[in-house]
Amino acid sequence: MQTKKPTLVQGTRDFGALEVFKRNYLVDTIRAIYEKYGFLPLETPTLEYLATLTGKYGDEGEQLLYKVLNSGDFLAGVDAPTTDYKTLLPQIATKGLRYDLTVPLMRYVAMNKEALTFPFRRYQIQPVWRADRPQKGRYREFYQCDTDIVGADSLLCEAEILVMIHEVLRQLGVKEFSLHINHRGILKGLAALAGAADKEQALCMALDKLEKVGKEKVVEELQRRGFTPAALEKLAFLFALPTAQAARWTLLSTQLASAAAGTQGLQDLQKIMRYVEALGLENHAITLDPTLARGLSYYTGTVFEVKIKGQAGSIGGGGRYDGLTDIFGVAGITGVGFSFGLDRLYQVLEALALFPATVGKTTQVLIANLDPSSETWALRVLAALRAHHIRAEIYPEPVKLKKQLQYADKRQLPWVAIIGEAEQAAGMVMLKNMQTGGQQEHTLVQLLQKLS
Amino acid sequence: MQTKKPTLVQGTRDFGALEVFKRNYLVDTIRAIYEKYGFLPLETPTLEYLATLTGKYGDEGEQLLYKVLNSGDFLAGVDAPTTDYKTLLPQIATKGLRYDLTVPLMRYVAMNKEALTFPFRRYQIQPVWRADRPQKGRYREFYQCDTDIVGADSLLCEAEILVMIHEVLRQLGVKEFSLHINHRGILKGLAALAGAADKEQALCMALDKLEKVGKEKVVEELQRRGFTPAALEKLAFLFALPTAQAARWTLLSTQLASAAAGTQGLQDLQKIMRYVEALGLENHAITLDPTLARGLSYYTGTVFEVKIKGQAGSIGGGGRYDGLTDIFGVAGITGVGFSFGLDRLYQVLEALALFPATVGKTTQVLIANLDPSSETWALRVLAALRAHHIRAEIYPEPVKLKKQLQYADKRQLPWVAIIGEAEQAAGMVMLKNMQTGGQQEHTLVQLLQKLS
Repeated sequence: MQTKKPTLVQGTRDFGALEVFKRNYLVDTIRAIYEKYGFLPLETPTLEYLATLTGKYGDEGEQLLYKVLNSGDFLAGVDAPTTDYKTLLPQIATKGLRYDLTVPLMRYVAMNKEALTFPFRRYQIQPVWRADRPQKGRYREFYQCDTDIVGADSLLCEAEILVMIHEVLRQLGVKEFSLHINHRGILKGLAALAGAADKEQALCMALDKLEKVGKEKVVEELQRRGFTPAALEKLAFLFALPTAQAARWTLLSTQLASAAAGTQGLQDLQKIMRYVEALGLENHAITLDPTLARGLSYYTGTVFEVKIKGQAGSIGGGGRYDGLTDIFGVAGITGVGFSFGLDRLYQVLEALALFPATVGKTTQVLIANLDPSSETWALRVLAALRAHHIRAEIYPEPVKLKKQLQYADKRQLPWVAIIGEAEQAAGMVMLKNMQTGGQQEHTLVQLLQKLS
Repeated sequence: MQTKKPTLVQGTRDFGALEVFKRNYLVDTIRAIYEKYGFLPLETPTLEYLATLTGKYGDEGEQLLYKVLNSGDFLAGVDAPTTDYKTLLPQIATKGLRYDLTVPLMRYVAMNKEALTFPFRRYQIQPVWRADRPQKGRYREFYQCDTDIVGADSLLCEAEILVMIHEVLRQLGVKEFSLHINHRGILKGLAALAGAADKEQALCMALDKLEKVGKEKVVEELQRRGFTPAALEKLAFLFALPTAQAARWTLLSTQLASAAAGTQGLQDLQKIMRYVEALGLENHAITLDPTLARGLSYYTGTVFEVKIKGQAGSIGGGGRYDGLTDIFGVAGITGVGFSFGLDRLYQVLEALALFPATVGKTTQVLIANLDPSSETWALRVLAALRAHHIRAEIYPEPVKLKKQLQYADKRQLPWVAIIGEAEQAAGMVMLKNMQTGGQQEHTLVQLLQKLS
């Protein structure tokens, strides 16, 4: 058989031990806090019917959906040969890979409406797949950490989520972050203010790129999309917002005074801020950002996004949505949700050197395998170590001690227990400290005490 | 837009909170023990190139591989229209879903040979996908919990894994299980004994069905596959094995005396048993089973399988393999591995009622939302509870108390904290025990103590 050098699928990764430990540390931290806030876990399948997935992510998103070929002779039921892939596609593929965690949640809520207790607080930490062009820091398989409250329109929900985001980041040691908040009402109000109430979508799409492309390019795009000089004049204040939060709130409230939707949006945000304060959050990192639009058009109320100082892009975002289950035949459900991007968060912690040094749980002691005659004692020591919850292993073959020490060294194991005939005869264990190179003899009881 | 009742892809499942908690309990238990035995985690991508996956699982397995359509216009590069799916397939799909955890491990070892430290002890707990016909207890997406020692041929590795399997099952509370062991050498010896050395594969395939179809059907199949009456006479003892282990070992050793491969296999198993004993395993559940063949043809030495008393099928299995990385251009690597089927294990724990009652971590206390005027105190209490690591939530809207109590009841929350104007004025909290219905007033300090 031909032998080939195997490769990873572009945009996917293997995670070795240390990476898995670090990722689990993140997941465990997030999970514990989500649960403390009353959220319970949900997991949905990797495969969903394309009927569930399509029509939810826009044309661009649809392109990025991974489609899975039907099993067996997938051409058996095809009407007529075609060279048009769009005609062929629905005939040969009915399933796709999970693209986000929101649509599966909506599918789940629609299917289990009668059994669920509303408001339904769930979290979900699972991978999603997107056939994106791979680039630095962007992957085709990545984890999202979603949390949603479905079936409640109180703004207290938003406040709880904002406080929870602070708790997660602070527990992870991330200090310099900002939590941008905005409201669809404000964006609607801004469009109205510019006399372009019909161009709210265009305004959102242009503003969405502000951080990436800068003010000039956004203004150019707005001009192209038909915003008049007078309209742009009205919106000019967006590009020179005061940094002081109090001044921002005042400015927005003045500017939007004549736009009902904007005023309502701002009042909602103010109410959220009062709740956040009542929840006792100190030194919050919330910043009012009327230019925050977020791509997903399904948000209908608040929107928020978390940014890390000195890092481009966001590490998470969310907002309020109405009627997301309508398409599945369940009307009138409102919800609010947030999602951390696990891989982005990982990169941030790595960049800021915030992973605890103790996060990897490597083997504590290697038992060197010296010769078959002392094996009985060596195996007894091994069993005793494990019975005392000490992570231990024995080198499987009695090769040269030097080779075994090299193994321990490469794997960065802190201790090697050397057990030869002399140790067996005396019922002792020679323990070598791999950092200092020093070694000392112990009884089994002393050894267990030392390593426990 | 058309609204449709959404459905799950056949053979896949949603996991609600309690199921996730139970599954995590299993994974956490297995993971901790695997780590205690010196294994470290690895995670590989869901998507692998079909070049990596194909040619490894036999014709039947190949049929069950999920193939993922190439992105964009997947027909663009197709040579000529065809109605033969086997011709079209490699032109429109280059990726597939992970089918097991062994081939990805081999791919990983081949790709990272230089950086890895051998013997390489890794565990991997991830889902795999198979386009199997869904049936009771069989799913298209299911989790495997693999553990392997790659690059060591000492039989001590087998012994360690056998002891570890005992520890996992005992820690989970599973008492009545049996760990069947066999050796490819024994199967080879049996074929030789029957004068059918060339029919070892046929013998394995027939014996593999013994538990499912019974002795008569196996004998019929062997006859069909060309085993003579004289040959079947030689193998007759396999269908009437003594239950006592000592008698079994003696019988096998007598029967296989003239078959070199069989004698060698048996000696290997005896050595493993001595190691198991030296490791101090008490009341082991290991049973010598010369009829254990296991479907996977890549095993070259020991094979083992775990069965639960009173439950059909196995909950895990493994064995030793040689040269699994040959196909990836890395020769001469031997290894031994084992895998628990998480879903089968889940079913067993459920059937035996072995999941601890405390496995679900639901919200401990719901704060009832009585009226906006007492909200300040309610939110302060909520924040204090969470600051003391108590899982707490507030009902997001001030609806009728009855409705909020119904919510707590349905979600089986143990406590509801009732905070109205009177409580706010007095700085107290009325705590209702949802099980007894009784309620009692507490100061915040008392509340925190009671629920901590």
